[in-house]
Amino acid sequence: MHIFITNDDGYLSPGLATLAELMRPYGQVTIVAPEEGQSGMSNALTVKIPVRMRRVHKEQGLTIYTAGGTPTDCVKLAMSTLFADSKPDLLVSGINHGSNTSVAVIYSGTLGAAAEGVLYGIPSIGFSLTDYSPQADFSACRKYIPKIITQTLAHPFAPQVFLNVNIPNLPPDKIKGIRLGRQTKGAWAEEYEKRIDPTGAPYYWLTGRFVNHEPDAPDADENILQQGYIAIVPHHVDMTEYHELERLKKIWQF
Amino acid sequence: MHIFITNDDGYLSPGLATLAELMRPYGQVTIVAPEEGQSGMSNALTVKIPVRMRRVHKEQGLTIYTAGGTPTDCVKLAMSTLFADSKPDLLVSGINHGSNTSVAVIYSGTLGAAAEGVLYGIPSIGFSLTDYSPQADFSACRKYIPKIITQTLAHPFAPQVFLNVNIPNLPPDKIKGIRLGRQTKGAWAEEYEKRIDPTGAPYYWLTGRFVNHEPDAPDADENILQQGYIAIVPHHVDMTEYHELERLKKIWQF
Repeated sequence: MHIFITNDDGYLSPGLATLAELMRPYGQVTIVAPEEGQSGMSNALTVKIPVRMRRVHKEQGLTIYTAGGTPTDCVKLAMSTLFADSKPDLLVSGINHGSNTSVAVIYSGTLGAAAEGVLYGIPSIGFSLTDYSPQADFSACRKYIPKIITQTLAHPFAPQVFLNVNIPNLPPDKIKGIRLGRQTKGAWAEEYEKRIDPTGAPYYWLTGRFVNHEPDAPDADENILQQGYIAIVPHHVDMTEYHELERLKKIWQF
Repeated sequence: MHIFITNDDGYLSPGLATLAELMRPYGQVTIVAPEEGQSGMSNALTVKIPVRMRRVHKEQGLTIYTAGGTPTDCVKLAMSTLFADSKPDLLVSGINHGSNTSVAVIYSGTLGAAAEGVLYGIPSIGFSLTDYSPQADFSACRKYIPKIITQTLAHPFAPQVFLNVNIPNLPPDKIKGIRLGRQTKGAWAEEYEKRIDPTGAPYYWLTGRFVNHEPDAPDADENILQQGYIAIVPHHVDMTEYHELERLKKIWQF
């Protein structure tokens, strides 16, 4: 099996190193990860400047490249060059330093890479640990990610789907298990901190807090996570709202 | 009515000026648009540096601000400052110079801004004209966008929905009408052009061609557009694949 790993925290991230270590028993691993941190880059593409890729490590079973640009650039460039003749069997993205539940799916570079994998027809999984620290403890990931890979190999998920896996920041023996769920309805509030620069002009730092619009829904991924379970959500790239399409077809006359 | 306009081509784009001209008869217009072109920026957020906003124009009924960062930054920053106490009634994004059908919804800054509008509970519409030229002819937009706004005001679409409107690059009298449809299944292929720099090192420009995976589907937006109609797709921000969720719940055991 050939496994393609990427992330949005950059090629030197401990989360990426952990994921590579966990995937090597399954086959050949090729990493193509951004040069620098690309958190919050969503499915962004680099269009104004060209991108480059360079190999930074090679040993039996593991090759590491880094590319300028976004996680989506990394997937597109790798698929157009390294994997042009032979698709990888699996794309895994992460392990992200920080949670990616609810609407984070539309902002996350980790999941942007997984969405791009789906567009190339590769089974893709994004992994996130709810700890932003570079010194995060990945021991729960070490215990549970292999269980998720085992299920994926035994019972593959549909090819138009990518999985969003969020792992609580708990010791492995405090995690209650793994649950499948759906994207939580929510949004961010109080998003900016205003500051004044030395010339007297304002500038704004993105900050804010997540507001869960359905804190009691048992099948919402944020709630699954808060209850001490690993949350897995299957996502797709079709954003059509089919019910609204049918409703509008009946009432809109042009 | 208070109308919030943004885009991804930057505050000096002719498409933005056209949209502002078309929206002014409906009420007060506030523009907050990026300083520079932000095509392909998806729902990307600026997290490593702060963002700024400055007012560049003010007259009766029209105020124009520009902000550093992405279209999503513009929406978040405007909602957190200018609109903190009173939400706009409508967000319109565009008119984008270039098509945004099919999977462009996941890459487009124009539609990233509309998705962000939905997260703030604002009815949001992204408009795109299938002509990349800065000298694009917006006469079809002038004829048809008011019809779409009229329908929206008479029969509002659901609050969790944003509309993706693509307008063919045809003279107004060659356009056959307006049709509601769904996101076309497709992807990009042959995505990079490899070049060699003066030192002998390779670099890659993003390019490629769109491959339509369902060229005969009458309700797919790309096909509606190709047949000379304006295509409208209702989108939402819930990317859960519910059928796959139910299927995996039955077969995955942990």
